[in-house]
Parts: sequence; structure tokens; C-alpha cells
Amino acid sequence: MNRIGIYGSLGRMGQAIVAAMPALDAIHAGGADAGDDPVPVARNADVLVDFSAPAALEAHLAAARAASTPIVIGTTGLQHRHHAMIDAAAGDIAILQTGNTSLGIALLSALVRDAARRLGPDWDIEIAEMHHRDKVDAPSGTALMLGEAAAEGRGLSLADCSVEGRAGLVGARARGTIGFASLRGGSVVGDHMVVLAGDGERIELAHRAEDRAIFARGAVQAALWLAGQPAGRYTMDQVLGL
Amino acid sequence: MNRIGIYGSLGRMGQAIVAAMPALDAIHAGGADAGDDPVPVARNADVLVDFSAPAALEAHLAAARAASTPIVIGTTGLQHRHHAMIDAAAGDIAILQTGNTSLGIALLSALVRDAARRLGPDWDIEIAEMHHRDKVDAPSGTALMLGEAAAEGRGLSLADCSVEGRAGLVGARARGTIGFASLRGGSVVGDHMVVLAGDGERIELAHRAEDRAIFARGAVQAALWLAGQPAGRYTMDQVLGL
Amino acid sequence: MNRIGIYGSLGRMGQAIVAAMPALDAIHAGGADAGDDPVPVARNADVLVDFSAPAALEAHLAAARAASTPIVIGTTGLQHRHHAMIDAAAGDIAILQTGNTSLGIALLSALVRDAARRLGPDWDIEIAEMHHRDKVDAPSGTALMLGEAAAEGRGLSLADCSVEGRAGLVGARARGTIGFASLRGGSVVGDHMVVLAGDGERIELAHRAEDRAIFARGAVQAALWLAGQPAGRYTMDQVLGL
Amino acid sequence: MNRIGIYGSLGRMGQAIVAAMPALDAIHAGGADAGDDPVPVARNADVLVDFSAPAALEAHLAAARAASTPIVIGTTGLQHRHHAMIDAAAGDIAILQTGNTSLGIALLSALVRDAARRLGPDWDIEIAEMHHRDKVDAPSGTALMLGEAAAEGRGLSLADCSVEGRAGLVGARARGTIGFASLRGGSVVGDHMVVLAGDGERIELAHRAEDRAIFARGAVQAALWLAGQPAGRYTMDQVLGL
Repeated sequence: MNRIGIYGSLGRMGQAIVAAMPALDAIHAGGADAGDDPVPVARNADVLVDFSAPAALEAHLAAARAASTPIVIGTTGLQHRHHAMIDAAAGDIAILQTGNTSLGIALLSALVRDAARRLGPDWDIEIAEMHHRDKVDAPSGTALMLGEAAAEGRGLSLADCSVEGRAGLVGARARGTIGFASLRGGSVVGDHMVVLAGDGERIELAHRAEDRAIFARGAVQAALWLAGQPAGRYTMDQVLGL
Repeated sequence: MNRIGIYGSLGRMGQAIVAAMPALDAIHAGGADAGDDPVPVARNADVLVDFSAPAALEAHLAAARAASTPIVIGTTGLQHRHHAMIDAAAGDIAILQTGNTSLGIALLSALVRDAARRLGPDWDIEIAEMHHRDKVDAPSGTALMLGEAAAEGRGLSLADCSVEGRAGLVGARARGTIGFASLRGGSVVGDHMVVLAGDGERIELAHRAEDRAIFARGAVQAALWLAGQPAGRYTMDQVLGL
Repeated sequence: MNRIGIYGSLGRMGQAIVAAMPALDAIHAGGADAGDDPVPVARNADVLVDFSAPAALEAHLAAARAASTPIVIGTTGLQHRHHAMIDAAAGDIAILQTGNTSLGIALLSALVRDAARRLGPDWDIEIAEMHHRDKVDAPSGTALMLGEAAAEGRGLSLADCSVEGRAGLVGARARGTIGFASLRGGSVVGDHMVVLAGDGERIELAHRAEDRAIFARGAVQAALWLAGQPAGRYTMDQVLGL
Repeated sequence: MNRIGIYGSLGRMGQAIVAAMPALDAIHAGGADAGDDPVPVARNADVLVDFSAPAALEAHLAAARAASTPIVIGTTGLQHRHHAMIDAAAGDIAILQTGNTSLGIALLSALVRDAARRLGPDWDIEIAEMHHRDKVDAPSGTALMLGEAAAEGRGLSLADCSVEGRAGLVGARARGTIGFASLRGGSVVGDHMVVLAGDGERIELAHRAEDRAIFARGAVQAALWLAGQPAGRYTMDQVLGL
């Protein structure tokens, strides 16, 4: 029996997670904006899931660390300093941070890494994504995750080759860069496409999320897996055995 | 017999036009960077086609006006001041300016205008495009043209509702805006997709150019049509009878 | 206050319709396989909605006719004889038969008709669709509806130019035909794409249904509209004022 | 210096190959329908490339075998008996048979095999392709090759799970099958998409050929590689070191 504490339980993803685990003995914390105290939630849970907001991450990590409770972080829009906080906390507790908790995206990331590695720098890599009209950050956390997979395949760091928000007289494409383009509209759950474009041919590797439940199921699966792990930073690949 | 003078004949599109009209009595001018004198080209032609660069437009329009020669302008990356120059010159000569000379894009524009008009502002409009790695401007001239068609369908001016190059913490989508996203890579001739996204459903209206010859054929068709027109500003819809 | 009677209320679409109208005074009939008597349902309703099965259509039409109750027919997989039954019944009651009750598909049909009319027979028309793994008929009723729109645009009858299920040594494509291709898998609600393919360019006009609720909302809207109409056969275009 | 003999040099692909190797010392044979004697071609070449027709394969293999000349076979529409002929001939000479000679498709096949292996039978696999209006066989040889990769990933033979040309009341999708759908129209060089559809999400792995030259370059690369190999049957993966 695992008790799952949720940070951000009133948000879109938090509610999908609650809906995905009716049979579990779960503890629900308040939403990201609720100003609830994160400490008791961490103490009463076997594992935490955070789908709140970047601004709340520091307090949530401190609570998890103080209670020695593992934590799955699905919040997007993280900056470098948030990743540094996570790395520091991973010295004490088990942490899995991911831009996307679905099986399909985990597999797509593996395929993108593989394709980028095999094709070499003559092939240009571009990543397009579309999400519903209420999403506030661009590119999506998942798009950045796919970009990191592509950069890894080439032995690069995404920070050194990323190009976001092309507009105006931008000049010819610089060789070796990875470009991002974001569409917003309607109720789209989340579509991602990685394009590898060579001379005379293109490969397109895409994922379409039809139902937010896939992320919730994956987050619960990740939480149950993480509950038994020693301190360290983990990935969805490890959860899914890819 | 029509003599077609080309500004930008050494560029990618200029050469495609030359290839598309072997049987015509055409006069080929120098490329956009050649520093050739545009005046004799305009004097010796029955109609001009310009696929050069925005910086050369003023001189080309002056030459066309001085020689009373109609001109098709396919150069992209035009700013407001270029459009003002065109409007002024259209008082003296026949001018057709277009972001795209293919039949398919002309039809797509008409369909986009119609769809935007019928669907109303609850549907979000986004425009994505992909072009080869050497294209220097973003969004493409064709994407902007499709955006104008969408804005017209809603009774708006694109300048008032356009959103380009989304990146960072941009916030939720503002109602009524038209978003643009540009991908660059490989040898892609030109793909465009207009997405109309409502609650629970999406319409996607797209065009894929497989071969630059379609633009060249359209430009020649436009030139032959324009040669017989009085002063004024014209569109591809009129050439194609759409 | 309108009472809506549903034939096929236990099916996938029937249940979505029930979910879409909590505030309405609706009467729910049994599912298509239930063997329920359709006559009392028709007598107690102001308008009927049928999402059952082709085999049940004759009995449902007879019940509707006997009770003088208008009927919306969304059942797919209809044959010529079913359409003949509908035409006969439309002499006595108001009937709206459609392969798809969403706003998006109604608009897409109009765009397809228009595009087919303007492009002429040099452009090849193909229609691809994907639905979930449990769909039993192919092509989908919606794909056939889009095919009819394309055929109409060309002044043809779909029956004279339709090509389904291409496989084997089929030979070169016959000019003027309209081809259909069906994909099945997963939980896809319904994607449709009409391709118009010319020399060197393609236009793709597509619709993606993300949520079955769009069909339910459209069916209820159609039913409320149809309740006040005289005898005759109607279309979604009329409901939506397209 | 390698002399490449071509069977089918007057066909679409044969001419693209001739165009792709201006600097090579190549020998050109007649087209597939020319009735030319294949024996002298085989004797005067270091390696053969066959893009003719299935009916000519037997004579071409016999000529290659008699001359001990390796042969690349890119002809599509092969039946089981043709593959048996190839296996028999591979006892004497080096043979590489492939449905597609591009780098992109070779990589896509590897990705599809990998994805099918990891995802398991709960995910449905469908393969869609579009080619120009003159293609006579369906599905394309490349689509079948991708289907074989998917079947291999699952430890199955494609012959046991393939479903082609779905049309009519086909019933619900049978678990574990691989479906094919073919579109024809315009001048499309060749688009392929493999869809892996699970509950609530889809992965799409696609390739778009923009220019027939990619196949020609790959065929020449394969021929140069094969020229130095001992008897046996080879694949593009080996040529490309994937």
C-alpha cells in the first residue's frame, strides 16, 4: 500500500492523477496556488508527485528532503536553477524529473536519440509542438526533453545548439542547431513532432496524446516505482525498462 | 509574343523561371546582387518578374514605372514601406505582388479566408511552415499571405492580431490572435499548414510544394496575364479566375 | 422543452449524447441490440436520434413515420436501399441523415466541395481516415460524406468514381477517380484527410476529432433544429447555416 | 573503377540512377521492356542494378549468376517465388534486394523494428503510404519492407499478420495484425507513415522522399559496396553500417 501525496492537486494534471488512482490510498494536497503547507503532505506520504509551478519547487523539495520522501516532478517551465536544486536534493532522496510521463514519449525520446546519433550533422533537426490555448510556457517541457534527447544523440548539450522562436530576418539556418516551434490553440492535449531533414528526404517522428489520462497513469506508475528506490536522480526510461 | 524581363535571374526562383519558359522570347537580367542597371531590362521587356531582394525593390519599381512596364513581384520579406512603394507605383503601372505564385496556395488562401469567416473567434488560428535551411526570413511570405487571408475572413488586419516566434513564459493564448511558427531544414521546397482549433476538434488546411517549378509556372502565367492589364494592383486570384 | 428519443442509447455515440444533454428532458430508448419496441419511444419524443445499426433502420423509420416524429440519423454503414428508405420516409417526416454531426466536418465538406470544383480533373482526390480498433465499417461514413462532397464539386456521383481498398497489382490510377484508404487502431476518435494532388504540389484538408462530445453536441443541436421543420430531407449545413 | 550495369535504364528509377553517376564508368543496358539480351550487360559490368519489372527478374538473375556478377535488386512488386529465386542465386553471387535504397528509409526501418519490439501487442500497427498516380502496385515495396520490420520486432512473419485494402464491413480490428493503406495521386515521389496506436496516444514514424535522386544515390552506394562482397544475400543496413 503506497500513499501518494500530490502537489498541485487542483491543477489540470493533478486532477487527472486523482482520477487515475481511485483504488489507491492517496493523500491529496492543495493546489499550487493554495499556499498550503507542503511539510505535512510530505510526512504523510510514501511518495510525492509534483505538478504545480516552478515557483513552488524549492519549498516542495525542502519538504520532501526533510521527510525523506521520494518525489516525481512533472512540473514544466523549469530553469537551470531549478535543475540545480533537483540535483542537490537527489543526494538525499530519490527524484524523478520528467517533461512527460507517458510511455509513448519515453519511447519517442529513445528513437530520437538513436536517429540523431546515426544520421550525423548533415541532417537538420527541428521540433514542433501544439498544445491547448491555456498553456503558458513555450516550447513545452516535452519538446525540450525531445531536444535534449536529440542533442545527446549528437554528443552535444541542448543549451549550446537550441534555437527558439524564429521570427524576422534570421538568416540561413546554422549547421548543427536544433530549432523549436510552438503552436497554441483549442483543446489540444499535446502533439509533438521531431523532423530530421536531409537533402531530398525527411524523417518525422511524432507523438499525439489523445487523453490526459496517459500522463496520469504514467505518473502513478513512476511514483509506485520510485517509492522503493535509493537517493538519486531517475528517468522514465528506467521506470519503463526501455 | 511577350518578352519577360527577370530581376533576380541568378537566384533560386529566377533560375526556375528561366527553366520554365524555354519557348518564350525572354530577356534575362542579372541577379539581385549583381548591381546591374535595371532600367534597360525594364525598357526591353513587355512585363517584368522580380524575385530578388527587398533592398532592390525601390530601384526595380522606379525602372518599371519609367518604362511603363507591368511587374510581378514575388520577392518575400517585404516590410510596410515596401507595400507603400508598391501601392504608389500601382497608380502608374500594373503590379501583381504575391507571397506565392502557385495555384495550390492561391486556392488554399481562398479556403482559409472562407473557413476563418465561417468559424468565428472561438476557433484559434495558427500557421506553421517549413522551408529549406537557406531561407533567411521567417515567417515565410506565403505564411503571412495565408495569415492575411485568415484575418480578412474575420474582418481584421493581420498587423493587429499576429503573434510570431512564441518562446518563453508567454502566458495563455490571447483570443483572436493568429500565431506563426517556422521550421527550417534540409531541402524542403515549402510546406504550409493553417490549423483552426476549436473545443474538441481541429481543422488543418495544408499545402506541400514538391517542386519549385510550380512557382515558376505560376509566375510566368501571372506575367503573361499582367502584360495586358491597366495600372492597378492585382492578385493571383484574379490571374487564376478563383 | 424538447423530448429527445434515442435509438442506440447504449452504444458509444448514444452514451455520449446522453452525457451531452443533462439539462434536457430526454427519453432514452434501449440500445440497438436490445430488441426494444421502437414505437413507444417515437410516440413519447418530440424528435428522435438514431445511432444504432443499419439493420434496425427500417423499424426505426416506420416508428418515426407512424408517430410523425422527426428523426436525425447518424448511423453509419448505410447502403443504397437504406438511403431509398430514408427518401421515402422524408415524404412524411423531417429527416436529417449525416455521416458526421460535428461543425468541423460540416465546414470541411464545404471546403472540399469548393476545392474539387475549382481545381478540375487534373488534380487527383484521395481520402484517408483513421478510427479506433473497434470500428467495423470502412471507409467511415464521414469519409464517404467527404467523397460525396468532392464528387459533387466535380458534377459527378461518388458511386461512379469511387475506388476503395486498393491492394495488389491495381495498375495506374484512373483519371477522375476518388480513392479511399482506412486505418484502424488504438482509441482514435476520428481523423480524416482529403488530399488533392496535382503536378508538383498537394493540398491537404483535414479534420481531427479529439473528443466524441463534439458529435454529441452536434447531434443534439441538429435534433433541436429538426424538431421544428416540415417533412423533407435535411443536412448539417442547414442546421449550421453554412 | 567500377562498371555498373543497369537493367531498366529507361524507367523512372533507371534514369535517375544514370543521372546520379555522371563521373562513373557505367554501362547502360536497355529498359525492362526493350527485350535486350541481359547476358552481355552482366558480363561487361562489375556490379548490376535492377530496377525493371518482376517478370524480367528470372532472366536477370540467370545472367548475373552466369557472369558471377553481384546484383542490387530494387524492383518492387516481388512475389514469394521471386524471393525464392533470389535466395537460390545468393548461393552463387552477392545479392542485395531492397524495397527502398534511401538512407532515411533504412533508418526508419530500424526505428520501426525497435518501437514494435518495445511496445508489445497492445499497440496497433498501421502503415500508410502515398505515391504518384502512375505507380501500379499497392502497398508499395517500401511499405511492405516497413511492415516486415514491424513484424520482426514482434517476432512474427508479416505474411501471418498482414491486412491489406480494408473495405466494407470488415469487423473490429484483429489484435496483432499490421494494416496497410495506399494512396495514389499527383507526382508524389513517396511518403510512408507507420502509426503505432495505443490507448490514449499514438506514435507516428514517417519518411517523405522529396527527390528521386535519394534512391539513385543509395542504389549507386549499394552497388559500389556490393561489388566487393562474397556470395550471399545482403541488406541496406549493412551498406549503411546501421
